[in-house]
Amino acid sequence: MIILSTTRLTAEIERQLQEQYKDYTFRYMENIKAAQRYLKDADILLTYGNDIGASDIEKAKSLKWIMVLSAGIDGMPLEVIKQRQILLTNVRGIHKTQMAEYAVAMLLSHYQNLTIFHQRQKDKLWDKTIKRREITGRTITIVGAGSIGEELARLAKAFQMKTIAVTYSGGSRPHFDYVYRQDDLEQALKEADFVVSILPSTKETEGYYKEQHFKWMKKTAIFLNIGRGTAVDEATLVNALDNDEIEHAILDVTPIEPLPKESRLWSHEKVTLTPHVSGGSDRYIPRAMELFEKSLNQYISTGTVSINKINLDRGY
Amino acid sequence: MIILSTTRLTAEIERQLQEQYKDYTFRYMENIKAAQRYLKDADILLTYGNDIGASDIEKAKSLKWIMVLSAGIDGMPLEVIKQRQILLTNVRGIHKTQMAEYAVAMLLSHYQNLTIFHQRQKDKLWDKTIKRREITGRTITIVGAGSIGEELARLAKAFQMKTIAVTYSGGSRPHFDYVYRQDDLEQALKEADFVVSILPSTKETEGYYKEQHFKWMKKTAIFLNIGRGTAVDEATLVNALDNDEIEHAILDVTPIEPLPKESRLWSHEKVTLTPHVSGGSDRYIPRAMELFEKSLNQYISTGTVSINKINLDRGY
Repeated sequence: MIILSTTRLTAEIERQLQEQYKDYTFRYMENIKAAQRYLKDADILLTYGNDIGASDIEKAKSLKWIMVLSAGIDGMPLEVIKQRQILLTNVRGIHKTQMAEYAVAMLLSHYQNLTIFHQRQKDKLWDKTIKRREITGRTITIVGAGSIGEELARLAKAFQMKTIAVTYSGGSRPHFDYVYRQDDLEQALKEADFVVSILPSTKETEGYYKEQHFKWMKKTAIFLNIGRGTAVDEATLVNALDNDEIEHAILDVTPIEPLPKESRLWSHEKVTLTPHVSGGSDRYIPRAMELFEKSLNQYISTGTVSINKINLDRGY
Repeated sequence: MIILSTTRLTAEIERQLQEQYKDYTFRYMENIKAAQRYLKDADILLTYGNDIGASDIEKAKSLKWIMVLSAGIDGMPLEVIKQRQILLTNVRGIHKTQMAEYAVAMLLSHYQNLTIFHQRQKDKLWDKTIKRREITGRTITIVGAGSIGEELARLAKAFQMKTIAVTYSGGSRPHFDYVYRQDDLEQALKEADFVVSILPSTKETEGYYKEQHFKWMKKTAIFLNIGRGTAVDEATLVNALDNDEIEHAILDVTPIEPLPKESRLWSHEKVTLTPHVSGGSDRYIPRAMELFEKSLNQYISTGTVSINKINLDRGY
């Protein structure tokens, strides 16, 4: 059996995998281009998902299983994968620790004015007048509360926050004090010191946040988006900030990525931007490979994989 | 009864106190200078502690109780307070939340390279190559683990860290996986990804950290000092950083404060500096006043205060 990866892992992980599965051939390539000549014989393909086209799948005559090393499969040629009845799985669920850490880091950094302290150090100024606020005891509303939201709520409870989830289904969730339905969004936004958006990219969530939503929020609210940038359009957000309807926006995602140079978000004094990195982590590949090993063991013993299997009809 | 404060509180708290204790007279002054004319009649004095001299105490003929709104009483004229048998209390214990938040914020910010992301935003660069590390699962060693250390350990456990305390007395402590004695300091430092110093200012802790201690630490260790700056002298620390014995130092306290302009710490690329602010918080005065009310109630009903009473023979 031949396992082809269109990305390099760490040297240690590459060695370990080959040692552990001696009967199989592992081929670790720099990218899809370098992987071309090995596509023909590959049984299993490891990929970040955004490099694979329909023609690659066609070349891969023996391909039975693709494991996507990210959570999104938007860029995959799903039609041909479905026709060929190739098994498709992803690494859904391995982002929650780093994304929850990102959210806590950004809220703490903003509330403690860390960028101002950094500037003072550069200027060699011992300035004790800069104010610090605590995140402890605040109210956090998490819109789109799946596994990442639950992990963030768990940390928020350690900081003694009141945790509110907004979901389509309602019901109770671990680490949330309150679960509000869509219909109660107004109340959920009104109460929040921190509004965290972890909405996935679907038709329903595009332009989810309207002018009115920001008016409902506290003037001191922090809006943090680590879901999809399309959930709020730039003009609506900038308008809310310019009108002092909320205090600050922290955005790891933007409507267009990379964010165009001319966007007002780059230099808006009430915006903190990072380039869609909240899912990244030094533990990413080790965790993805742990999941791959589990899946591979299942594949070897049963001929298929149920872990994070994508339903090709639904597309998730 | 007259209660004189040498500092202004918030307008709301000032009003609330006067309303709640209608029979007493509250005088809130900007500073000790403005308070001079009221010293003579004051029964109770509220002060941050660094503004009061022996001559002020002598003028305050009716003074029975001083409540210091900080944890340190180093700057107080203890001799005359003792002679006059004036009750002295402080706000020990109200710093732990903000100091633990500070430590977590600084570790997250460093591990997530937030200052670099901030610079990239300024430069309008969408740079996804910047690496982020997780603090989850690391090992934290807290040297001088009192109530602040315990609060930090509690948060560290939420991040699934291994928590090690180093104390003079040993024994078990809440939220610590291991409590090491002074004799086992080498082991405690060798294991740590994060070494947090919360040593108080005493004769024994001056110059506590020697060259050897930094050699024991991991090359990737972060040294974070929120205790007293005199616990390590500048040359020893800078040397350890220059020799790559540890990765980074985060200092809220320095051997001399304010830190002199000529100090190498200001511009050292492996040093993050803040100007002794980790105890500050938007909740500071509310919490201090909560403690004052409790103490005042005790004073009214019993004629004395046991809460955070300073033993004037021991000085703490």
